[in-house]
Amino acid sequence: MKAHITIKDLARELDISPSTVSRALKDHPDISPETKRLVKELAEEMNYKPNLIAQGLRKSKTNTIGVIVPELIHFFFSTVISGIENVAYARGYNVILCQSDENYQREVTDTRALWNSRVDGMLVSLSKETTKFDHFQEMLDDELPIVFFDRITDQLKTSQVIVDDYLGAYKAVELLINKGCKKIVHLAGPDTLEISRNRLKGYTDALESNGLSVDKNYIYPCVEGTYEESKVLTAEFMQRQPEVDGIFANNDMAALGSILALQDMNIDIPDQVKVVGFSDWQLSSLIKPRLTTVSQAGYEMGQEATSILIDQIESSSDPVIIKKVISTKLIERETT
Amino acid sequence: MKAHITIKDLARELDISPSTVSRALKDHPDISPETKRLVKELAEEMNYKPNLIAQGLRKSKTNTIGVIVPELIHFFFSTVISGIENVAYARGYNVILCQSDENYQREVTDTRALWNSRVDGMLVSLSKETTKFDHFQEMLDDELPIVFFDRITDQLKTSQVIVDDYLGAYKAVELLINKGCKKIVHLAGPDTLEISRNRLKGYTDALESNGLSVDKNYIYPCVEGTYEESKVLTAEFMQRQPEVDGIFANNDMAALGSILALQDMNIDIPDQVKVVGFSDWQLSSLIKPRLTTVSQAGYEMGQEATSILIDQIESSSDPVIIKKVISTKLIERETT
Repeated sequence: MKAHITIKDLARELDISPSTVSRALKDHPDISPETKRLVKELAEEMNYKPNLIAQGLRKSKTNTIGVIVPELIHFFFSTVISGIENVAYARGYNVILCQSDENYQREVTDTRALWNSRVDGMLVSLSKETTKFDHFQEMLDDELPIVFFDRITDQLKTSQVIVDDYLGAYKAVELLINKGCKKIVHLAGPDTLEISRNRLKGYTDALESNGLSVDKNYIYPCVEGTYEESKVLTAEFMQRQPEVDGIFANNDMAALGSILALQDMNIDIPDQVKVVGFSDWQLSSLIKPRLTTVSQAGYEMGQEATSILIDQIESSSDPVIIKKVISTKLIERETT
Repeated sequence: MKAHITIKDLARELDISPSTVSRALKDHPDISPETKRLVKELAEEMNYKPNLIAQGLRKSKTNTIGVIVPELIHFFFSTVISGIENVAYARGYNVILCQSDENYQREVTDTRALWNSRVDGMLVSLSKETTKFDHFQEMLDDELPIVFFDRITDQLKTSQVIVDDYLGAYKAVELLINKGCKKIVHLAGPDTLEISRNRLKGYTDALESNGLSVDKNYIYPCVEGTYEESKVLTAEFMQRQPEVDGIFANNDMAALGSILALQDMNIDIPDQVKVVGFSDWQLSSLIKPRLTTVSQAGYEMGQEATSILIDQIESSSDPVIIKKVISTKLIERETT
């Protein structure tokens, strides 16, 4: 085990005060060049390492960004995190992450854990359960910069980065209509999330703009967003509503569940039923048939959110609220 | 440099209890002024320096565990993290994560960032690049508990949780042999990692035990472990070595790349070539044909590692080194 050399050790050795040593190490103008040289040489010789924690506390900057995502296992969030890290490390920041596991209580605890880790700022995508925002308001009251991405709220005054979920959904449903679908099911996400509400609105507006009526019996909540959930659901509604000829799923995993159910029932994709997802997960181009989906540009979203956050951390003036919308891209593959 | 002076050393010298020394240093009201004076003088004389982390554990435990994984996007690490969080939250700990992105330098920075976040302990799976371990030794010297999982090293005295990679690989290759394969390629992982070396050993031993010779021309490094890398590689060696009738891949993504290449070449799976992966990623049961693979029990690994770590954090005695090996399970699907 090593002994830790402190400023006091250097001070004792040189017979000067610790505060002189400290200021000498920081090139304070009040200290003579000769003293600075002596202190620095001794520091080098004695292998002095500044105490990072104490230094952090003094400057109150850790150069660390805290990130909270609902689930790490989501390919989308993994790509966002890559974008976050790309910008953060390039600008000299570390990234530490927490997952809320789609759980409000855990999100509250995670927020406090990151706060206790004295992060310089936070990037947050909300859990499905979150409808109260006091845990973030507390941090904002303490002037901790927070930027929300993807799963946002308008109840807090913060910058936000989202994709154009409404237009993405609208275009996805319009593609189904253009390909001849008339009875289109929507597998909807949890209505606590603004992104789900926007995708639902894109679905209904696309139907109406194209002269098709919106039928509530074709809208199914698929709140877990797992392929297992959607597989069971799809098998059920295809039995009851065999006229369905198109499915627009709130995410790719739900779309995958539909594909698996349709294949089990020997219903041809895309001839009998066409399927579109949302997110462009990695597996969407690897399954057969390859899934048509809406690409969300997660990497770019992570980069944008991080740039905004670090600008805010490093700015001395009052934060400017920025709302950035990234466009989506419809990727046509084999399911349409 | 001197050995680190501990509270126990002071206690021994003064023939009083360590807790009396500790309380004297903290000006506890129960301790007499005379004892306080004695303790403080001796502490000064012996150059005693409180261990920041040990002090943190005693005084202000953060109840936070830091985790470093190579890549979050790996399904395996996602499941390990779920297991970690399951145990951690149940025992009152938060989890904060960093990904090293398979990069040594980033692993070093991550380690320091978690240290600065004053985590109570760390769970680590090494990056592919890591061959030096000073960044962990520093933490261990300061009595921070660390448990390694999956990607471990024997160069540090810490507890470890691994799966039986050797036996998993052995059984996978033996399955191929039992199904009639005689010319079996191994797509090998990076040889910096002990897990890759163990899987390679399982492959060679299974061949030899079954009377097949090991041919170096059938062992291909596939160090990125992406399906793109393996797809190109498989297309190349199948052209050169059309006699190949079995592929054992170091991970499921590499196995997937082989499947895609074989399908492009209209080589039937499993009739002409059989494929086995390692890890049992989520997509392995969703692709067609469904992949035969070795399941690694990531969730259980996360749970075990976390139990060992928290026991160590909460124990007042010297840490006991535990090496836990979790068995793998061969899952037969359609590619064999």
